[in-house]
Amino acid sequence: MTQRRYLLAESEIPTHWYNVMADVGPPPPPLHPGTGEPVGPDMLAPLFPMALIGQEMSPERWHAIPDVVRDIYSMWRPTPLHRALGLEAALGTDCRIFYKYEGGSPAGSHKPNTAVAQAYYNQQEGVTRIATETGAGQWGSALSFACARFGIEVKVYMVRVSYDTKPYRRAMMEAWGGSVVGSPSRDTNAGRAILVRDPHSTGSLGIAISEAVEDAATRDDTKYALGSVLNHVLMHQTVIGQEAQKQMAMAEAYPDVVVGCVGGGSNFAGIAFPFIAEKAAGKEIRIVAAEPSSCPSLTRGHYGYDFGDTAQMTPLLAMHTLGHGFIPAPIHAGGLRYHGMAPLVSKLVNDGLVEAVAYAQNDCFASGVRFAKAEGIIPAPEANHAIRAVEAEVEAARAAGESRTILFNLCGHGHLELGAYQQYLNGELVDSELPQSDLDAAAAAIAGMPAIA
Amino acid sequence: MTQRRYLLAESEIPTHWYNVMADVGPPPPPLHPGTGEPVGPDMLAPLFPMALIGQEMSPERWHAIPDVVRDIYSMWRPTPLHRALGLEAALGTDCRIFYKYEGGSPAGSHKPNTAVAQAYYNQQEGVTRIATETGAGQWGSALSFACARFGIEVKVYMVRVSYDTKPYRRAMMEAWGGSVVGSPSRDTNAGRAILVRDPHSTGSLGIAISEAVEDAATRDDTKYALGSVLNHVLMHQTVIGQEAQKQMAMAEAYPDVVVGCVGGGSNFAGIAFPFIAEKAAGKEIRIVAAEPSSCPSLTRGHYGYDFGDTAQMTPLLAMHTLGHGFIPAPIHAGGLRYHGMAPLVSKLVNDGLVEAVAYAQNDCFASGVRFAKAEGIIPAPEANHAIRAVEAEVEAARAAGESRTILFNLCGHGHLELGAYQQYLNGELVDSELPQSDLDAAAAAIAGMPAIA
Repeated sequence: MTQRRYLLAESEIPTHWYNVMADVGPPPPPLHPGTGEPVGPDMLAPLFPMALIGQEMSPERWHAIPDVVRDIYSMWRPTPLHRALGLEAALGTDCRIFYKYEGGSPAGSHKPNTAVAQAYYNQQEGVTRIATETGAGQWGSALSFACARFGIEVKVYMVRVSYDTKPYRRAMMEAWGGSVVGSPSRDTNAGRAILVRDPHSTGSLGIAISEAVEDAATRDDTKYALGSVLNHVLMHQTVIGQEAQKQMAMAEAYPDVVVGCVGGGSNFAGIAFPFIAEKAAGKEIRIVAAEPSSCPSLTRGHYGYDFGDTAQMTPLLAMHTLGHGFIPAPIHAGGLRYHGMAPLVSKLVNDGLVEAVAYAQNDCFASGVRFAKAEGIIPAPEANHAIRAVEAEVEAARAAGESRTILFNLCGHGHLELGAYQQYLNGELVDSELPQSDLDAAAAAIAGMPAIA
Repeated sequence: MTQRRYLLAESEIPTHWYNVMADVGPPPPPLHPGTGEPVGPDMLAPLFPMALIGQEMSPERWHAIPDVVRDIYSMWRPTPLHRALGLEAALGTDCRIFYKYEGGSPAGSHKPNTAVAQAYYNQQEGVTRIATETGAGQWGSALSFACARFGIEVKVYMVRVSYDTKPYRRAMMEAWGGSVVGSPSRDTNAGRAILVRDPHSTGSLGIAISEAVEDAATRDDTKYALGSVLNHVLMHQTVIGQEAQKQMAMAEAYPDVVVGCVGGGSNFAGIAFPFIAEKAAGKEIRIVAAEPSSCPSLTRGHYGYDFGDTAQMTPLLAMHTLGHGFIPAPIHAGGLRYHGMAPLVSKLVNDGLVEAVAYAQNDCFASGVRFAKAEGIIPAPEANHAIRAVEAEVEAARAAGESRTILFNLCGHGHLELGAYQQYLNGELVDSELPQSDLDAAAAAIAGMPAIA
């Protein structure tokens, strides 16, 4: 029998997070929207503990993972690397396909990797309450779980369309003690302002971020936590790629191409950044980011400065953006419905180190169902974008007469999104083209923003 | 850091299933209801492939696991053994608590261990369609997954109350290609007869078994598969306990007590039977089966012959039973809503080798939420009964001034039952006493059955 799963011992949980900025340089700095000056640590202090602000701006290559965090990681880490023998057979390919599976974590995705770290640093600095946003609910679940371990209260602003279509996610957050409200909500000025203009708003990550930031900025006992986008969040996820490097070596394989789906960028960064280090050092390897065609920030967006949120409360970030006013179609991959992109991922795409591709929802669910039948795991709708990109690689390899080794991140399971699968199986999902005129209109709103030097 | 998880390599997947009958003898034989004579292999042939009938009646201690089955097992096996450090801390105990976690399988429970084996033997004998029943949906999911791998069509009769309250389970079965109907259904004589008497029947495993057996018995292309109760099904689950024995040795621990929840008996058998062998050989170890107080076959039922189903289509089985007409309250632990019990488990209780306990639904959910907060895994409602029993062991150890080593089977996750957790958290679950008069009435219906010699 060919080996399917490559497991590491608990002692092989990485001891450090890897900071890709040490190898590729930092992205252009966040700017204060009023002055246009780079944002200093003091401006972020109302929102984040100082330890995380330090990580956000650090030039150091390695950051030691605190023992308490590693101990909690050991509840599910190291995660397995799977050889996708079933999918290879179903696709009739001689490519070797591997996937790192993060769905075995408490919340069912990669998100606890940073949630536990963030909860820890907040507790160390005496924080007793955290406000956050969540798209599909993966991040809100992860933070509720993590904060339960540190005795920290959590308020989750959940994007309305997910709040309505994913009731089990809410139950999961509440089982861990989190408090959840649909966003836009009546609990913040930002939410109320949106509801005045659009009482039936389906919400977006941009809106939910505005609400959570306002909550944290207006309460002394509360800080804010973000599940993606920021440098320190992406760094916490690099445990994924570091483990995958060891496990690929166990399999006596090295990837020709590494694939991840992207919304804010965190699971992609987790699998990809440790390989970016090797690519930067001269290794021949391609790295592909897969996004939804209904929210195509990397493939059809503008690379420039923009707000991270809809209500213009955050600093300006240098990123690929569709404009902070862009509201994506209510696709089921809620975690990918973000108008912008992590500045680090944007920089890597701009520098040519990462390729970007985009796929439509129905194609991605078709890939997800094929994967479920072949591999037994029902993927999160977000992860289906990565699987679709893997299938495209297999087709490209076939056309080129090559056998490629492909590694991708299966960032979560889809157990709480089975309603979406039911809709797909019933033929109820409709893909609509995103007209260029919509993107032009959204881009016009950010025409006056600073350019990236 | 104390080690939390004990992992085995793929090569350590057991090579054989363990047949407890070799050590404790077979249970009293199934009887033909008309003649009162023991049932022979030929009578079972319309329902099961001969290989499984052979296993059902085998005196051999070890049965080799086919390579194809072991290869599919390797998609999730060996499963991890966890030290419950979080729960130990939450309970403030110096008992050591370990759990074998079967929730990482495709269907999210232990059920694929036998589903894959059954699908394999059916395929070997040319079967192209299988009919089955499912309670909470765990078994139907597992069989849909397994049959997808062997190209076998599946029809699932799903207990009505679960069909209505667990829509995601249905989506999971359909994603794997299964066909699902609520039971009692209009697709069988047995179902139609029940609906005439009670159009709003919430169903039961006993009714759904009748429907699936009728389906298989009346179609040439179809055989029947059962997810629990029968000797061969329980034997397939012994991979759980065999792995746990190795993993406990890795942890340098040996259980004073082994705990599992029981409905039909299969996950309990999986963890317990390999330890029964050691107990039979003189090892001092207690083994506890935990059932719901609303369906207390072991603790308040009668040990005698009864039908395995409601419509009286099966042979008579020697077991603890509440009577084949007993319809349990619609608790969320649908997998435990069975009027009878595996003959092998019943025999072991009768022989004094296994202790039985019963707990109410709200107490079990309280234990489940405590476990979720402490260990990060949200358990299946069935498994909460085992956790409640573990907590009782901890209290008993405290009262006795002892430190005990406890091993239990966490047979599945509760991701698809989060609606039940929501109801529990909202205080909407009501425990009602099961009056003795109800049990007496159900028992009266089986008063004329043969006694066990």
